[in-house]
Amino acid sequence: MISGRCAACRYLRRRCPSDCIFAPYFPPNNPQRFAAVHRIFGASNVGRMLQQLPPDLRAQAADTLYYEAECRVEDPVYGCVGVISRLHEQIDEAECELAKTRADIVINSDIGQQAQVQQLHDEVEDN
Amino acid sequence: MISGRCAACRYLRRRCPSDCIFAPYFPPNNPQRFAAVHRIFGASNVGRMLQQLPPDLRAQAADTLYYEAECRVEDPVYGCVGVISRLHEQIDEAECELAKTRADIVINSDIGQQAQVQQLHDEVEDN
Repeated sequence: MISGRCAACRYLRRRCPSDCIFAPYFPPNNPQRFAAVHRIFGASNVGRMLQQLPPDLRAQAADTLYYEAECRVEDPVYGCVGVISRLHEQIDEAECELAKTRADIVINSDIGQQAQVQQLHDEVEDN
Repeated sequence: MISGRCAACRYLRRRCPSDCIFAPYFPPNNPQRFAAVHRIFGASNVGRMLQQLPPDLRAQAADTLYYEAECRVEDPVYGCVGVISRLHEQIDEAECELAKTRADIVINSDIGQQAQVQQLHDEVEDN
């Protein structure tokens, strides 16, 4: 029954067993999902990694393996480590911006206090 | 010459050719580096991915493949996608903190202006 095979078994041109480790996570209507993980990790590694997990965690693992595989296909040098580097830069920028803003508060409150003192002096002198 | 083999060729129990694709990036003194990428990606996938890159980018690719493999060994469900999720949370927190700090500036400058106006009134009345 060819039409019932999952994307992995179609790709590997084999019968899809009823307890196929790939079938729940690689449906036949999304063949590029399996093609990506197969290209980067290899079918047997993906099967083994899923098999070693409890069934309720396999869907998440399949999703993250697919994400990693897609990143590596798009960026063969850095893969999703490139994403991590960019996020670290973004955190550095946000923290730098926060430190600057906090410094501005201190400076502005000092200037404000000085201006207030000056204004009091002026007021007293005028009267 | 067994002692001259790279970590990959030692692991795979084969002769290490002079043009070995693994040798420059998997030195014999760090066997666990190759063991990790082999376990997650498979030796032939790693070799192919390195081969498809220009030589000057292969060291970076080997480093990022090793990082990804280590993440997946430590966290078999999320791998380094778990790191990405945590960094996204950290960015959200930093941006939230920044927005709060900016709101504080506006509130404090309003309170400061009101206090200054009140102080001027009091000064004028006192004199």
